[in-house]
Amino acid sequence: MAETTATAATTTATPTGSAEADALRALYADWTEIISSTPDLTTRLFRSIFDEWHQATREPEDVTYAEDTVGGVPGLWTLPIGADRSQVLLYHHGGGFAVGSASSHRKLAGHVAKALGVTAFVLDYRRAPEHPHPAQVEDGVAAFVGLTERGIRPEDITTIGDSAGGNLAVAVPLALREQGRPLPGRIIAFSPWLDMENTGESLVTNAATDALVTVPLLESMIAGVLAEGAIHPRTPLANPLHADLTGLPRLYVNAGDAESLRDDAVRLAARAEAAGVDVTLCVVDDMQHVFPFLAGAAPEADAEIAAIAAWYRR
Amino acid sequence: MAETTATAATTTATPTGSAEADALRALYADWTEIISSTPDLTTRLFRSIFDEWHQATREPEDVTYAEDTVGGVPGLWTLPIGADRSQVLLYHHGGGFAVGSASSHRKLAGHVAKALGVTAFVLDYRRAPEHPHPAQVEDGVAAFVGLTERGIRPEDITTIGDSAGGNLAVAVPLALREQGRPLPGRIIAFSPWLDMENTGESLVTNAATDALVTVPLLESMIAGVLAEGAIHPRTPLANPLHADLTGLPRLYVNAGDAESLRDDAVRLAARAEAAGVDVTLCVVDDMQHVFPFLAGAAPEADAEIAAIAAWYRR
Repeated sequence: MAETTATAATTTATPTGSAEADALRALYADWTEIISSTPDLTTRLFRSIFDEWHQATREPEDVTYAEDTVGGVPGLWTLPIGADRSQVLLYHHGGGFAVGSASSHRKLAGHVAKALGVTAFVLDYRRAPEHPHPAQVEDGVAAFVGLTERGIRPEDITTIGDSAGGNLAVAVPLALREQGRPLPGRIIAFSPWLDMENTGESLVTNAATDALVTVPLLESMIAGVLAEGAIHPRTPLANPLHADLTGLPRLYVNAGDAESLRDDAVRLAARAEAAGVDVTLCVVDDMQHVFPFLAGAAPEADAEIAAIAAWYRR
Repeated sequence: MAETTATAATTTATPTGSAEADALRALYADWTEIISSTPDLTTRLFRSIFDEWHQATREPEDVTYAEDTVGGVPGLWTLPIGADRSQVLLYHHGGGFAVGSASSHRKLAGHVAKALGVTAFVLDYRRAPEHPHPAQVEDGVAAFVGLTERGIRPEDITTIGDSAGGNLAVAVPLALREQGRPLPGRIIAFSPWLDMENTGESLVTNAATDALVTVPLLESMIAGVLAEGAIHPRTPLANPLHADLTGLPRLYVNAGDAESLRDDAVRLAARAEAAGVDVTLCVVDDMQHVFPFLAGAAPEADAEIAAIAAWYRR
């Protein structure tokens, strides 16, 4: 790997990171309380509470927004003032393929785009369980192709996403490669969720510190996106840990050291490196799932986004 | 009144207005279904679903945002590119004093500010039931005073709001007058909710057409903001229909003709006119509660906001 900031899982000197970073843990703890106390919580209400994800993020200043449809896929442009409009982050939001939206991720995408000096298009891809795999990958591919048809060069597109969207940020280039199409110039995956079989050790070792992600929650999301078992959990475009990663563009992947899905990021980085990909892995002490949501609000997230900006320009 | 667009309640040629405007009715119908099917819906989840209010509004383009605290009250600036930053809409969101937020109203405030060529500060005032009346009025006053301490001239401030926030848009100037302070230059109230005794005829005559507002819903909100009956429902700053409106600045008030709270707008306009206030009332055929939420998405909302811009500049 080009750079690695590895941390032992047992290092818990400041178990929640900065005081500001605790806001994300508190939001997740609140959701977890709702989920556990509302056994019949509908997908509809799941989507309502996960649309509050943006509450962890401070409003980014000097960014405008515009709704659009690219390659037939609706979404939201985040347009930092002065950004290079020839460079696009194709942002795939997280939420287990089932929840989350351009709205929940607007501010996060705005911060990242602003730090990188580029634009972002946050996809409202079709969600599970109404639309199982590969609908999400198809929508990412369609938007990518739609951007190129507008004159954006493939190498000026970065596929990016968090959690399930971090999976899509990798799966979309794999699907493009399968179709013989040009690939994006870079991939960025925040706390990617890849493993559809729940085999990561950190699911067990970080169960006490992760405030949101549990095996039962993942199982319900897997049932939705894999159509109640109709789709095999090692399907490479659904579970890129089982894909041939050869030829992928430069990859930045991160995770919080306190999160259950840390080992998905670690395993992706190791497999990509073994396949010859230029990989940067960053595991940050004490952080929860998708800690860049704390952009503008906590120093760990701002430092991470600054590091990504340096990596982007390299 | 300076202008009146009155419509008979029985006129229902196109009962939902434009096809696009039906999106607001559909959102309200969905909320109503959740409320009726979830008898133990918590205030927490009420707030989650009402934070989706923004979904009816198209993202306004060329507007940036910034979090701030003004006069001790947190909120969100909407800053249209090129706006006159010496003129401010002090925006009080709706939601029965209990739900709604700067987030749910960001896009709506952005559209109005952009059309008027000014900025808006959307208050996150303290909400009921944790904070009953007059906490909301106090926060509006504090933010108003805070703006003037930053050098904004009182006459360049417009108090504005929708539903319960339309109440505050009137009550805050009344409170400023009581304190001997300068008043704002204008007041704008979208579908104001004023009557804490549920005496409006349209609560009955429009019960079949209003997709959201019902007497039981209002009763639950009244219990919260009036501290379970500890505060009298004709307290003038809680129910401006019982206030002396003499000396208020120019007032623009609207409502949808299909909504249960239409008569609050009509009665406010009549009482203000009787008190010598320069009033413009606009009741728009077939529209639901706070139909300007359809800004950028339905012609009725865009026409209304254009009319308000003309009124603002008059």
